[in-house]
Amino acid sequence: MRTIVHGDFAYSEKITEISTLKGGYMVVEDGRIQGLVAEKPELEDSDRYLDFEGRLIMPGLADMHLHAPQFPNVGLGTDMELLQWLETYTFPEETKYQEVDYAQLVYKKLINKLWSVGTLYSGVYGTIHEEASTKLYDLFVESGLHSRVGKVNMDRNAPDFYVETTEDSIRDTERFIKANLDKSERVKPIITPRFVPTCTAELMQALGELAAKYDLAVQSHLDENKSEIDWVCSLHPESDSYSHVYEQFKLFGAQPTLMGHCIYCNEDELKLMANTDVMAVHCPFSNANLISGIMPVKRYLELGIKVGLGSDISGGNEVNMAKVIVLSMQLSKMLAVHNANPEDFLSTAEAFYLGTKAGGEFFGKHGSFEEGYEADFLVVDDADYLINDLTVQERLEKFLYVGSEQNIVHRYLSGEVVEKPFDI
Amino acid sequence: MRTIVHGDFAYSEKITEISTLKGGYMVVEDGRIQGLVAEKPELEDSDRYLDFEGRLIMPGLADMHLHAPQFPNVGLGTDMELLQWLETYTFPEETKYQEVDYAQLVYKKLINKLWSVGTLYSGVYGTIHEEASTKLYDLFVESGLHSRVGKVNMDRNAPDFYVETTEDSIRDTERFIKANLDKSERVKPIITPRFVPTCTAELMQALGELAAKYDLAVQSHLDENKSEIDWVCSLHPESDSYSHVYEQFKLFGAQPTLMGHCIYCNEDELKLMANTDVMAVHCPFSNANLISGIMPVKRYLELGIKVGLGSDISGGNEVNMAKVIVLSMQLSKMLAVHNANPEDFLSTAEAFYLGTKAGGEFFGKHGSFEEGYEADFLVVDDADYLINDLTVQERLEKFLYVGSEQNIVHRYLSGEVVEKPFDI
Repeated sequence: MRTIVHGDFAYSEKITEISTLKGGYMVVEDGRIQGLVAEKPELEDSDRYLDFEGRLIMPGLADMHLHAPQFPNVGLGTDMELLQWLETYTFPEETKYQEVDYAQLVYKKLINKLWSVGTLYSGVYGTIHEEASTKLYDLFVESGLHSRVGKVNMDRNAPDFYVETTEDSIRDTERFIKANLDKSERVKPIITPRFVPTCTAELMQALGELAAKYDLAVQSHLDENKSEIDWVCSLHPESDSYSHVYEQFKLFGAQPTLMGHCIYCNEDELKLMANTDVMAVHCPFSNANLISGIMPVKRYLELGIKVGLGSDISGGNEVNMAKVIVLSMQLSKMLAVHNANPEDFLSTAEAFYLGTKAGGEFFGKHGSFEEGYEADFLVVDDADYLINDLTVQERLEKFLYVGSEQNIVHRYLSGEVVEKPFDI
Repeated sequence: MRTIVHGDFAYSEKITEISTLKGGYMVVEDGRIQGLVAEKPELEDSDRYLDFEGRLIMPGLADMHLHAPQFPNVGLGTDMELLQWLETYTFPEETKYQEVDYAQLVYKKLINKLWSVGTLYSGVYGTIHEEASTKLYDLFVESGLHSRVGKVNMDRNAPDFYVETTEDSIRDTERFIKANLDKSERVKPIITPRFVPTCTAELMQALGELAAKYDLAVQSHLDENKSEIDWVCSLHPESDSYSHVYEQFKLFGAQPTLMGHCIYCNEDELKLMANTDVMAVHCPFSNANLISGIMPVKRYLELGIKVGLGSDISGGNEVNMAKVIVLSMQLSKMLAVHNANPEDFLSTAEAFYLGTKAGGEFFGKHGSFEEGYEADFLVVDDADYLINDLTVQERLEKFLYVGSEQNIVHRYLSGEVVEKPFDI
C-alpha cells in the first residue's frame, strides 16, 4: 500500500544542515520512504492520503540512555553528587522493582511519557530483577515503540539490599534474553553491566560472551566523573583505562555499544571509540545536575566518534529530548567560552542530527526522511506559539526551544500511527 | 476581611533553606499574611476559606529582566552571538512596534504567558516607541500583575531604522512617565537606557535626572560579554569601568537598579554593587544561548550583592521561571566543575530564593509567606507526575524540575485570584 503524507518537513541528512521542504509530499510504500517531493503525486484509488497541511513534520526523537526504574525520582536529590545520589535516592528506589506490580505501574507511566514527548527509540536500563525487566520489555513490545531493554547486572560494590551473586546474574540474564529475544522486531534485549565498579571480571566476561552468542548490543556508563575513574583504575590496575576494562571483556564495540556520559575520556580511549562500534551518549541534564562536567561533543565529532543523546532519567530531569537537544547546545557553548574558543559550539543542525538521525540509526533505517528510511515521524501543531511567518527551519528551532509535548499531535512508525500506549 | 488558605506550603525565609508546612493554614487579613499556622483557626462567619487540601502552595515567580517585544523571536537565531543576533533578529523585530496594533497583539500574548507560568512580578523592556510602551503598560495594569515597564532609550550606535534623537528620547520618556505614573500601585515606569553603547552621555545624564525627579527604578545591561565591555571602554575612556559609566549619571544604585547579566564584573564593580542598591539579574538561558558565559552567582552572594533571576526573553528561550531557577543551578554546577571546586554550586534553596523572595522584594513585601507579606501565591496540582509519597520540599523540587504551567491551577495576588488576562 502506498501512503502520501503532506506537510512541512524538517529533518537531517547531513550533520551540517537541516533539510526542509515546505508544503511537500512524502511518498511511503509498505512503511518505507520512497522519497520527498515538492509536487503532489497523482493519487490512485488504493493510496492513503494523510493531509497535515501547515503542520511541521519531523523525525522521531531518540533517547539513547535512560533508567526506567528511576522515573519516580526525576527532579529529586539534585543537590547531590553521583555516588551520594546513587546511595540515597537511586538504589533504594530500584530495589522496589522486586515487586512486579510496582514495576508495571511505573513503567506504564514512563512509556506513556516517552510516547507523549515523541521518543520513538530508546536505550533503556531496567533493574537487576529479571521479572520486572521482562515486564518492562513486554510493555515496550505492547507500546509499539522501538527500544533496547536491559536487565541490569551488578554483583559487587553494591548495597546489601540491591546486589546479585555472579551466578544468579549470569543465569537470570541469559534467561531474560531467551525469553524475550523473538517477541518483536522493534524491541530487543541489550547487555547491561551497570558499570565497571559494580561488575566482577567473571561477570563481565560472561556478559561479553552472551552479547556475542545472541548478537546483542551492549550499554553501560563510562568516564562520568573523576572519582569514578579513579575507582575503576584502582579496581583494575591491569587495564590501561576505563574503556579498556570493557574492551578486554568484549563489551566495548565488539557489538554495537552505547556508552553513557564519556566526559573525561583520555586520548587512547577516544582512539578506541573512533575505531570501534561505540556510540558516546551525551546526557547534558544529568551531567549538569550531578556536577559531572561537559562532554566535548564537538571534538568527538571531529575525531569521527559516533555521538547520540540521552535523557539519563533520573540523573537528568528532562524526558523531552527536544530539551536535551537544546541543553546539549547550551552546555557546548559554555564549554566553548571556558576554552576561550567561542565559535566552537554545537549548532542547531548538529544537535538536532544527534537527537534524531544519529540515535535512530542505532535501530536501523530510522531517524531521517531519506529514501529507504522507515516512515517514522512526528506531526507538530505549532500554531499556539507562532506569531510571525517563519521558515520551516525556524519553526523547527522554535519547536525545539519552546515547544512541548502538547504540540505533538501524532506519532507514526513505518507509516502507521502509534496510539497512546496505556490507559492509566 | 479574613481569608484562611489551606494546603501544603513551600517558600523561602532564609536563602539557606526552604521553609515548608504540610497541611497548614495561611491567615490573611486585607490581603496581607498574618501568619502560617499548623492548626486550623476557628472560622468566623465573615471568613473566607480557600481549601487547597493536598495541593502545593508556593510564592509567585519574579522575572527581573525580559524584553517584551522580543517575544515573537523566542527560540530563533540561537546559533548567533550577541551583537550579530541584535542586528539580525532583535532590532528588526523591535522596529515593528511603531505599529500599536502589532504591539497589542504580541503584548497580550506575552502577558497571558507570564500569567500562565506564574510570573507575578516582572521587570520589562518595551521598545523606543512611546505609544507601544504605553500600550504595554496599560495591558499590565489591566492584567493585575506587578510590573516595572520601561520605554527603551537609544540615541547612538543603533541602526538607522531603529534610533531616536537625544531630544526625542528624553521628551518621550518624560511623557511616558507622566502619563502612566499614577495608573496603578502594581505597575510603575522604570528608566530604561538600553545599554551604554546605545546611549549618549547627554541622554544618560537626563535619564538619571528623570529617575531622581520621579523616584523611579532603573534597569539596564551590564558586562554581558567581553567585546561589549571593550566597546564601552572605548566609548568612555574617562570611566574606570562599565558600571562607573552608569554611576556617573546616577543610573547605578542611586535609585533601585536592575542590571542584567553581570558576568564579567571586575572587583571594583563588585564593590560598587555590594554598596549600592543594585540587583545583579542572572539570565542563564540567555547567557548560554548567546555564548556569553556564566555569572559567578555564589561569589556575588558571598559579597553581599543582591541577585535576582531573569528570563531575558528572547536572548533566553524560556519564559517559565521555574526552568530559569533550574538552569541557574545547572550552570553554577558547570562553573563549579570548571573552577575545580565542585561543592561551590547554587543549591535548590538558594536558586528558589532568588526566583521568588529576592525578586519579589524589589516590588515591596512580596515573594515570601512571612508575616506582613502580601498574600501572593501559586496553587500547584502536581498529582499527574507524583508516583511516590514525597515531602513538601521534594514536591517543590519536582515542580521546579519537571512541572509545567499546566500544573499551576490558580494565581493569587494580595489574597485575590488573578484570572487569565486576555481572551485571545
